[in-house]
Amino acid sequence: MSNANGQTSLGHGYYLEDLSPGMEASVSKVITDADVSAFAELSGDINPVHLNDEFAATTVFKKRIAHGFLTGALFSTVLGTKLPGPGCIYLAQGLKFRAPVYIGDEVVATCRITAVDTAKSRVTLACDCSVNGKTVLEGEAVMMVDRKA
Amino acid sequence: MSNANGQTSLGHGYYLEDLSPGMEASVSKVITDADVSAFAELSGDINPVHLNDEFAATTVFKKRIAHGFLTGALFSTVLGTKLPGPGCIYLAQGLKFRAPVYIGDEVVATCRITAVDTAKSRVTLACDCSVNGKTVLEGEAVMMVDRKA
Repeated sequence: MSNANGQTSLGHGYYLEDLSPGMEASVSKVITDADVSAFAELSGDINPVHLNDEFAATTVFKKRIAHGFLTGALFSTVLGTKLPGPGCIYLAQGLKFRAPVYIGDEVVATCRITAVDTAKSRVTLACDCSVNGKTVLEGEAVMMVDRKA
Repeated sequence: MSNANGQTSLGHGYYLEDLSPGMEASVSKVITDADVSAFAELSGDINPVHLNDEFAATTVFKKRIAHGFLTGALFSTVLGTKLPGPGCIYLAQGLKFRAPVYIGDEVVATCRITAVDTAKSRVTLACDCSVNGKTVLEGEAVMMVDRKA
């Protein structure tokens, strides 16, 4: 969905008038070892629980886990590309880390609209990341969404 | 801080007994165009406000902005590598996006301990990302921290 200049072809997402509680969208991603390394490089978060097998073995997780913000970024992907999609403005996101995500896990991130405040042009969504049907991360997002011209 | 196998050499971070309110740590990072592209690739968040100059020009931001989760990941970097550092477990993070981060901005992420709950082994931190001294992102983190053996 990007051209040679890295420009994406996504158009404007939903407008406020087209959104209602209950609408939802998801993305899924298998978290690879390369993803974890790339995220460590990008963020500078080289916590050994993500990168060092020996250290990870000494923790409650027993083996290396993905960065929580890598999992959480999938909420941004749903919100920024699908629902509400391009044009919305991220105001707030809560993140409650419920369980670890291991290398090779497939994460499904789902965001479901729980409220539309037409006066303030704000939409609230319940966000959930799950692995094999078990919630690993959840939280609420608040977005500002354009009205139709 | 990584060896040829990508294993980091960071040891265990602070233990609960060594933490007290007022302690703080920071990291800084200049957000580059390459960082934004890498984050889009990694997360799948190809919202054109991050990648497409023409689209971004039509938004309230006027030009391309960094992903909020890329900025927010710097909290994870502070928490996971400095304070409390390796060994802590991320329980929760709040994120309130206050202002955009543009390509080339230097973000300073600071986390400051506001409470230590010795009974629950939990530490709460006030987290702030700023650009040129202006807060662009803030929120509270809650970590579980190991006690000394």
